[in-house]
Amino acid sequence: VFGNLRINRTRLVDRIHQLGKIGALPGGGVSRLALTPADLAGREQVIAWMRAANLEVTIDGIGNVVATRKGRLAGRPVMTGSHIDTVRSGGLYDGNLGVLAGLEVIATLDDAGLTTDRPLAVAFFSNEEGARFAPDMMGSLVYEGSLPLEQALATVGIDKTTVGENLDAIGQRGPAPCGEPHVHAFIELHVEQGPVLERKGVTIGVVEGVQGICWRSFCLEGVSNHAGTTPMSMRQDAGLVMGQTIAFVRELTAKHPGIQLATVGSVTLEPNLINVIPRRARFTVDLRNTEGPALWAAEQAVIDFIRKAAEAEGLQLTHESLARLEPVRFSPAIVNQLELVAGILGHSHVRMPSGAGHDAQVLARCCPAGMIFVPSVGGISHNPREFTTQTDIEAGANVLLHSLLRLATVN
Amino acid sequence: VFGNLRINRTRLVDRIHQLGKIGALPGGGVSRLALTPADLAGREQVIAWMRAANLEVTIDGIGNVVATRKGRLAGRPVMTGSHIDTVRSGGLYDGNLGVLAGLEVIATLDDAGLTTDRPLAVAFFSNEEGARFAPDMMGSLVYEGSLPLEQALATVGIDKTTVGENLDAIGQRGPAPCGEPHVHAFIELHVEQGPVLERKGVTIGVVEGVQGICWRSFCLEGVSNHAGTTPMSMRQDAGLVMGQTIAFVRELTAKHPGIQLATVGSVTLEPNLINVIPRRARFTVDLRNTEGPALWAAEQAVIDFIRKAAEAEGLQLTHESLARLEPVRFSPAIVNQLELVAGILGHSHVRMPSGAGHDAQVLARCCPAGMIFVPSVGGISHNPREFTTQTDIEAGANVLLHSLLRLATVN
Repeated sequence: VFGNLRINRTRLVDRIHQLGKIGALPGGGVSRLALTPADLAGREQVIAWMRAANLEVTIDGIGNVVATRKGRLAGRPVMTGSHIDTVRSGGLYDGNLGVLAGLEVIATLDDAGLTTDRPLAVAFFSNEEGARFAPDMMGSLVYEGSLPLEQALATVGIDKTTVGENLDAIGQRGPAPCGEPHVHAFIELHVEQGPVLERKGVTIGVVEGVQGICWRSFCLEGVSNHAGTTPMSMRQDAGLVMGQTIAFVRELTAKHPGIQLATVGSVTLEPNLINVIPRRARFTVDLRNTEGPALWAAEQAVIDFIRKAAEAEGLQLTHESLARLEPVRFSPAIVNQLELVAGILGHSHVRMPSGAGHDAQVLARCCPAGMIFVPSVGGISHNPREFTTQTDIEAGANVLLHSLLRLATVN
Repeated sequence: VFGNLRINRTRLVDRIHQLGKIGALPGGGVSRLALTPADLAGREQVIAWMRAANLEVTIDGIGNVVATRKGRLAGRPVMTGSHIDTVRSGGLYDGNLGVLAGLEVIATLDDAGLTTDRPLAVAFFSNEEGARFAPDMMGSLVYEGSLPLEQALATVGIDKTTVGENLDAIGQRGPAPCGEPHVHAFIELHVEQGPVLERKGVTIGVVEGVQGICWRSFCLEGVSNHAGTTPMSMRQDAGLVMGQTIAFVRELTAKHPGIQLATVGSVTLEPNLINVIPRRARFTVDLRNTEGPALWAAEQAVIDFIRKAAEAEGLQLTHESLARLEPVRFSPAIVNQLELVAGILGHSHVRMPSGAGHDAQVLARCCPAGMIFVPSVGGISHNPREFTTQTDIEAGANVLLHSLLRLATVN
C-alpha cells in the first residue's frame, strides 16, 4: 500500500532554505545558538509548519517540541526528529534536515490521505549542539531521563546566563512533562558530517551505533636546557615523548584499521623556543571506537606507551581523563530494517558508525532507535560550507518515510 | 721559570662579585644588556681595574675595550678576554669570568715582577650576547672585520634605538681603529653553559671548536576535520608529520652518538582543539654538529624525511632556513697546548665542542685561537642561578695563565 509513496523533494528543500534564512550569516550558513532569539525565530517557523499540518504540538520543561499525528491506534508514537539549534557558524543541514524531513514525511502522508496504525511524532530537542550550554544533547538527555530537569535548567552557559533564564526569556519553557509521550521507536535522519559516504560513492549510511569517546590530557615535565650545550644523552626533553606519542597513536590505529580512531589535536610546549629543550609538553589524545573493550584497551595502550617513554627520557608524567563515553549500539532490528528499506528503494548503502553524538543515541536508551546518514560534500561539518545534494536529501527522506511507515504498521 | 706561578683565587672571585653588584637583580644574578647605563657602569669598573694595573687601554669604534701590557718585544700581543654584557636576567660568570681572569693573569705577573716576551692584552668585546642588538658577537665580528663598522652602528635593537646612538649616549664609541692591535693568538676562558663537565666530573674542558648550527622552520598544511567522523585513511593530519619528525630527529642523533644534536623546541598547531584534526603545523628544527658535512647531511635527511612523510599524508610542505653557521675548528696547536697545560697543572680535562657561540670563534678567523671551559653547576646558563665553584674558577684561570705565558714566550 505504501510502496510507491515518495516525498516531495522541492517542498523539503524549500523548507530547508526557508529555515536557513533565520539566523543567516552574511557569507552563507546560519547561526542559531540554542535558546537565543535566533533559535526562537527558528522554533516559531517550525512550530508554525507543525500547526499548519494539524499536528498536536507540545513543548516540555526543557523546550523540547514534539508534534504528533494521530494513528489508527492510540499508544506510543513512532518518532523521528533531530534539532534545529546550530553551532555559532554552522550550516543549513545539521539537525534541520532531520526535523524538516520528518515534517515532509507527514506532508507526504497528508497528500496521500494515509493514516498509519501507530501515531507518528516529529520532535526537535533543545540544545543538541552544546555550543552555548554543556552538555550537548541536553534536551534529549532530559527527555530520556538521565539528566534531571532542574540540573539542566541551572546550567550556566558561555555568556554566564542559565538555560532556565533563557528558556523563559524566549518563552520556550513549556508545560508538557519531560519524557512524554513515551516512544515506540525512534529514527533520525542526519547528514554524515564526515567524508565516508562521499568517498565511497554511497548514498545511504545505515548507522549501526555511535563510537565511544575517550579524551585524555597528558602533561610531561622535563628540564629546559640549551639546545647547543646539552648532549642528547643528558636531555629530559618533554617534547620528545609528545612527538613519539603522536607517531604511536597513528601506528595504534593501523593495527585496527577502520575501527580505532586516534587524534592528537592540541599541543603546547614550554618555553616553545627554537633553541631551548622543552621543559613541559601538554597534549590531548582523542580516541574513538565502536567497541567499548577495544576503546579502553587502546586508552591503556596509550597510557602505557607514554609512561614507558617518559621514564626512558626522565620525565614526570601526569594525565587525566577529560571524557569517557561508552559506545552506543543501535537496535539491530532497526539497523536491519533501514538496510532493507534502502535496498528496496534502490539506494546504495553501507553500515557505518557515527563519529559524532546525536539525539538518537540518547533515545536509544529508552526505545529501539536508529539513524540514517546522507553524504556531506567534502565531509564538511559545523561550517557554513556544509552541503548535501538535493538527490541525497531526497533519498534519505524516502528511506526515513518508508522506515517510519514500517515501524508504524502493526502486523 | 713560570712553573710555580699561580693566580690569586680570592682576588679573582672578589672581582667577579664586585662586578656582579653592578646591574644586580633583586633575587640574585645580573642584568647588563649591551650599551645600557648598567653596561656602562660595568665597563667603567673594569676599565678602572685595567688602568690601575697600568695597562694601555683603547676603545674602538664599536666600543671594544683592549688593555695591553708591554712585553720585552714589540709586535702582536697574545690576547685573552671575553665580554661583560649579559642577557636580561643573567649570571655573574658568563663572559665576566674570561675578562676578569685575564686581569688576574696580569695581576699575578705584576705580583711576581715578570715580563713576557710578547705583549699581553685583555679585551672585552661589545654586545656578545645579542640580547639587545642582533647579531650576537657583534664587537668581535667588527674587530675581526667580517661585520662592517657602519653596519653594526646602524643596527636597530629591541627598543628601536641604534647601536651607534647607544654607544654615543654612554660615551663608549672610542677613537681606536677597529681590529687593532692585530693579535698573535687568542685564548678565552668561559663557563661551559652545559652539563658535560659536571656530569663527567672533569675540571677543564679543552674546546676543540664550536658546533655549526642549522635552524629550519617547517610548515605543514593539511585539512581540519572532525576527529570522530573522519576515518584514519581519509585524514590529512598536519600534526602527525610534526610528531613523526620529533621522533625522527632523535633517532637521527642516535646514529651519530655524541656528535649530532637535534632539537624541536617550538611547535604550533592550528586550530589546536582536542577533537579537530590539525590543519596546520609549524615547528622548528635546531641541528648542531662539529662537522660541517655531517651537519648539512643531517639537515638534508630531516628535509627528506619530512617531505616523504608529508607526501604520504597528503600535506603541503613549505620550509625555510633561519640560520646556517658552519662549525669552527680551533687551532690544533692551541688545543694541544691547552691540554698539555691542564695536565701539567694536574687538572682532569676533556676535549669537547662548544655548543654556544663565543668571541673566540670569531677571533679564530684572524689568529690561532682556543678556549678553556670550566664546569657550570647543573649546566645552568643565562640564568641568575648560573654558578661555577671557586675551585674550578681557580683551575681555569691557572690554565689560562700558563697557556698565555707559553704563547707569549718566544723560543
